[in-house]
Amino acid sequence: MNHVKIALCQMNVVDNKEENLKKASSMIKKASSEGADIAVLPEMFNCPYENEKFIEYCENKENSSSLNTMSKLAKDLDIYILAGSIPEEIDGKIYNSSFFFNNKGEIIKNHKKVHLFDIDVPGKISFKESDTLSSGDSFNIADTPYGKIGMGICYDLRFVELSRILTLNGAEILIYPGAFNLTTGPAHWETLFKSRALDNQVYTIGVAPALNKKSNYHAYGHSLVASPWGDIIAECGFDEELKIVDIDLDKINKVREEIPVLKNRRDDLYNIIEK
Amino acid sequence: MNHVKIALCQMNVVDNKEENLKKASSMIKKASSEGADIAVLPEMFNCPYENEKFIEYCENKENSSSLNTMSKLAKDLDIYILAGSIPEEIDGKIYNSSFFFNNKGEIIKNHKKVHLFDIDVPGKISFKESDTLSSGDSFNIADTPYGKIGMGICYDLRFVELSRILTLNGAEILIYPGAFNLTTGPAHWETLFKSRALDNQVYTIGVAPALNKKSNYHAYGHSLVASPWGDIIAECGFDEELKIVDIDLDKINKVREEIPVLKNRRDDLYNIIEK
Repeated sequence: MNHVKIALCQMNVVDNKEENLKKASSMIKKASSEGADIAVLPEMFNCPYENEKFIEYCENKENSSSLNTMSKLAKDLDIYILAGSIPEEIDGKIYNSSFFFNNKGEIIKNHKKVHLFDIDVPGKISFKESDTLSSGDSFNIADTPYGKIGMGICYDLRFVELSRILTLNGAEILIYPGAFNLTTGPAHWETLFKSRALDNQVYTIGVAPALNKKSNYHAYGHSLVASPWGDIIAECGFDEELKIVDIDLDKINKVREEIPVLKNRRDDLYNIIEK
Repeated sequence: MNHVKIALCQMNVVDNKEENLKKASSMIKKASSEGADIAVLPEMFNCPYENEKFIEYCENKENSSSLNTMSKLAKDLDIYILAGSIPEEIDGKIYNSSFFFNNKGEIIKNHKKVHLFDIDVPGKISFKESDTLSSGDSFNIADTPYGKIGMGICYDLRFVELSRILTLNGAEILIYPGAFNLTTGPAHWETLFKSRALDNQVYTIGVAPALNKKSNYHAYGHSLVASPWGDIIAECGFDEELKIVDIDLDKINKVREEIPVLKNRRDDLYNIIEK
């Protein structure tokens, strides 16, 4: 029996950093008290999802109240924290940046969103992240006592190359903090998590902000876990919710033996290369 | 307005080649009379889906009643036919082989299943195609007046590399004759067609045999079409059925403008190479 308990912290993000840090902290404390091994926060958990707010809220890693809070919490509670993402400022550029803390409060891995979200569905939703943000340029896998965890953020989920590269490099769980909206959420959120899980026979996890009707960007919520068989085994609704999901890691090899997709890849005919 | 009418010929395949060719012919004639531009048959439309039957039913291309029947039909009816697949014998090897005929009865493209289906879900389904079949080793796109159509067969659907390579080479419709079973069908069939469509912003089409409870292999049926937005826009049930689906090809570019996934690929960081 090879299990890990992962807490999906689907928090309501508001236009007040202190409030967001308080809310994140209280959810992580509750998760820890309920036995979670890893707590996961949403994309932009400390900041409203708006280009102007990214500029206003961004923090430098060396002097970040958000990261300091998470580091202390991880150490005090003896818990791993995947701190969703924050707007991180480096040399005048802003990144959508995700930090993974171990249970000593150390950053073990940082992922900067590789694919920036530029969408324009006429009459429904228009948003251009690249107006404000710069993109990361690396693939990131965190080594944890619970296995290798591949990191992505939101739009990264749509790209089959990223999940395949993470899987071929040994990741068995892929976690994407994300903030789909009320157009793309109902249309694509579940399908994408199911398919990334099924394609790679890994667990996929998405953690989103709750739907906050007072904010300008309406997040879809619906934080979830999909199994290597492509089932959704846990899912939140629109509202704020803490969901702790027990994940059976042995299921990964079981599915890979049943349908040996990774073994049956024709790497004599094709391959995915990292440049 | 840039449309194509595609006929999903979800036929009941029996243990009698003549009967299968008659049934396929009658469905294609009906499809043609209802205005279909392209008729698609299921995987192994002329043969029960069993290793022993592949050996018994296989045909050499030069002397194939199945291919001759399809060629004549395509010409007589002035219709394109993607003739699902047949067991094709070449130099003593057998392939799961799909032929695309133009409306003059000429073969414009042949695809041999690249990924052989070896599955073992204990107590549910066990099947090893590779016991009998050899695998193809090429990627195939048919040029038609209705656009470029990428070809795959069944298990090929599970591999993100194949669909991406076909898409990057210009395919806008991917067609997979397939025969999922009563375990993998309910679990994965819809998700895979939706995700291949959504990942690549193409139409995907699956055409399966009807469920024949008298046969040893129980096909799932559920022939379907998924749109570039990831919606299933048409789907059969378990039983024999001819479904003609009108496909709006302009939708492809519309979706690609709304969410520019293909443009936002980071080919500076990764690429999929054909060897």
